Amino acid sequence: MGILTVTLNPALDREVIIPNFTVNELHRVFDKKKLINDPGGKGINVSTMLSKLNNTSSIAMGFLGGYTGRIIAEELRRRFPNITLNFIHITSESRENLSILDEVNHYITEINAPGPAIEEADLMHFMRLFKTVVSRTKTTVISGSVPLGIPLDIYADLTKIAQNNNNKVFVEARGQLLTNVVKKNCPDVVRPDMRSTNKVMGKELNTLNDYIEAGKEIISYGAELVVISYKMKSDIIFTRDGVRLLTIMDEELDESHLMGTGDAYVTAMIHHYYEIEKDLVKTAEFGMAAALAKTKYLKKEMPPLSEINEAIQHIKTEKMD
Amino acid sequence: MGILTVTLNPALDREVIIPNFTVNELHRVFDKKKLINDPGGKGINVSTMLSKLNNTSSIAMGFLGGYTGRIIAEELRRRFPNITLNFIHITSESRENLSILDEVNHYITEINAPGPAIEEADLMHFMRLFKTVVSRTKTTVISGSVPLGIPLDIYADLTKIAQNNNNKVFVEARGQLLTNVVKKNCPDVVRPDMRSTNKVMGKELNTLNDYIEAGKEIISYGAELVVISYKMKSDIIFTRDGVRLLTIMDEELDESHLMGTGDAYVTAMIHHYYEIEKDLVKTAEFGMAAALAKTKYLKKEMPPLSEINEAIQHIKTEKMD
Repeated sequence: MGILTVTLNPALDREVIIPNFTVNELHRVFDKKKLINDPGGKGINVSTMLSKLNNTSSIAMGFLGGYTGRIIAEELRRRFPNITLNFIHITSESRENLSILDEVNHYITEINAPGPAIEEADLMHFMRLFKTVVSRTKTTVISGSVPLGIPLDIYADLTKIAQNNNNKVFVEARGQLLTNVVKKNCPDVVRPDMRSTNKVMGKELNTLNDYIEAGKEIISYGAELVVISYKMKSDIIFTRDGVRLLTIMDEELDESHLMGTGDAYVTAMIHHYYEIEKDLVKTAEFGMAAALAKTKYLKKEMPPLSEINEAIQHIKTEKMD
Repeated sequence: MGILTVTLNPALDREVIIPNFTVNELHRVFDKKKLINDPGGKGINVSTMLSKLNNTSSIAMGFLGGYTGRIIAEELRRRFPNITLNFIHITSESRENLSILDEVNHYITEINAPGPAIEEADLMHFMRLFKTVVSRTKTTVISGSVPLGIPLDIYADLTKIAQNNNNKVFVEARGQLLTNVVKKNCPDVVRPDMRSTNKVMGKELNTLNDYIEAGKEIISYGAELVVISYKMKSDIIFTRDGVRLLTIMDEELDESHLMGTGDAYVTAMIHHYYEIEKDLVKTAEFGMAAALAKTKYLKKEMPPLSEINEAIQHIKTEKMD
């Protein structure tokens, strides 16, 4: 179906398991299995999850830099041969996120290294490549943050180029990146990234009404589907024919297992839309079911279709407006 | 002068500066300068220090593995173009040592990842390459630990091959590696690595007499110079014409600045022996002066010749036996 994922700021997610991790001590790790190198960044996560879900191929684009970028590229190539890598390689190092997991005390200590700064020439190179690639795809997923040196309206430029090439564009982002893309060139499917903020389109969302207004505003700019997380167990979904509240019933959510739920959501929506049916409400329900099924796993994982189909039984949909 | 350094178990020494580093928190590093990637391992340290001291060329050999090994190789090539790399590349990852420096609380938190396991075919490949390289050098430095899969008498085999090719062999090692090389094929210059043990040749060194016996034993196996650290401010040096106590006078030593002193010592001895004069006592004095000058620096650094020549004024040499 020709899927392109854009990750302008990829990361190498590294994990090391150290029982009783304490400061000012030397910790020796003897077992190589306790050290993990995982390619990360939200667009890359969608590519790897599509591959895991149904062995779906995709093209991944963005910037990879330095030693870290090369490790990301080689791990992707080794583990996901059906992801075509079309990254611009730069010298400045890609982000490296180290998580030190102490399973005895249930502590996670994290060290996030800075990402690269992108030079104008590299950005221009990327834009040229994007135009070429998007002429051969049908779906573009743009997701996550951008590194230094990238203008905050880049997602609007990319959406415009992709839509001009008849791509359906899915965006998951937050802050100014999200506001700019919605106002300047609204994507087809928008999922505000609410992990670290409750601000959408420049406004804090507190009451139910705030959420509904924000979603309707995004629809008014041209989106055909908007999904906004509402409290822990609900999503509010917006289409041109109304607003619906999706709620998880009879299920406890483990709040420590939320890593990767947004990426599983987007991945499952794409799968449903192209492989099952184009009904937008059912597409969102399937996405939410995937996110729910994901919470059975601690780490970022794509749950299998069987578990998503089971999870969908626990989702109640009510028309609100 | 044709110097070969052997590092069978290199490491990538990484350092990140994080003020108030605490467990169970997310720490973001914004400044790339607060992240350092340094090639390490004792033989490699001698090669880089020779380069820094007098722009002296050397050949470096050993095993480099995986992503970590490639970073070590590329950092060496980029920063030390006069070190010729003759490493065997393996797939298993080289060691990675991460130090998290908290300069507010003066804490160092260290995470040492495991080294590779060496396959027999790779070891045979290394031995063949070693024979070829050593036929073109005059000095071989063998230093540090060995990875899994390497027999603990390897230093004896290497010393024999190097000496058969008319190389002078310098060894800094500890434990069984040291005992085996001394007993089976004694190197010309031996410096027991006392950083984490006071055992030499299988015996604990407690009294001054224990130290003297251990040094004399190594001389009896054929070494021409043995250097043993004695307490913080002295070295006992052994040659075929006697035992001498070298003591640092009128200088305070910062015990937190000892990292790399052994490597500076060996580097300076080589420099003195080949570039200044072959007098063994003066060679050891010059090595000790370099180690003393090194303690003015926190990290592993080679002090410049001017500072070594200044430091040598503070060393008093007494004949003991």
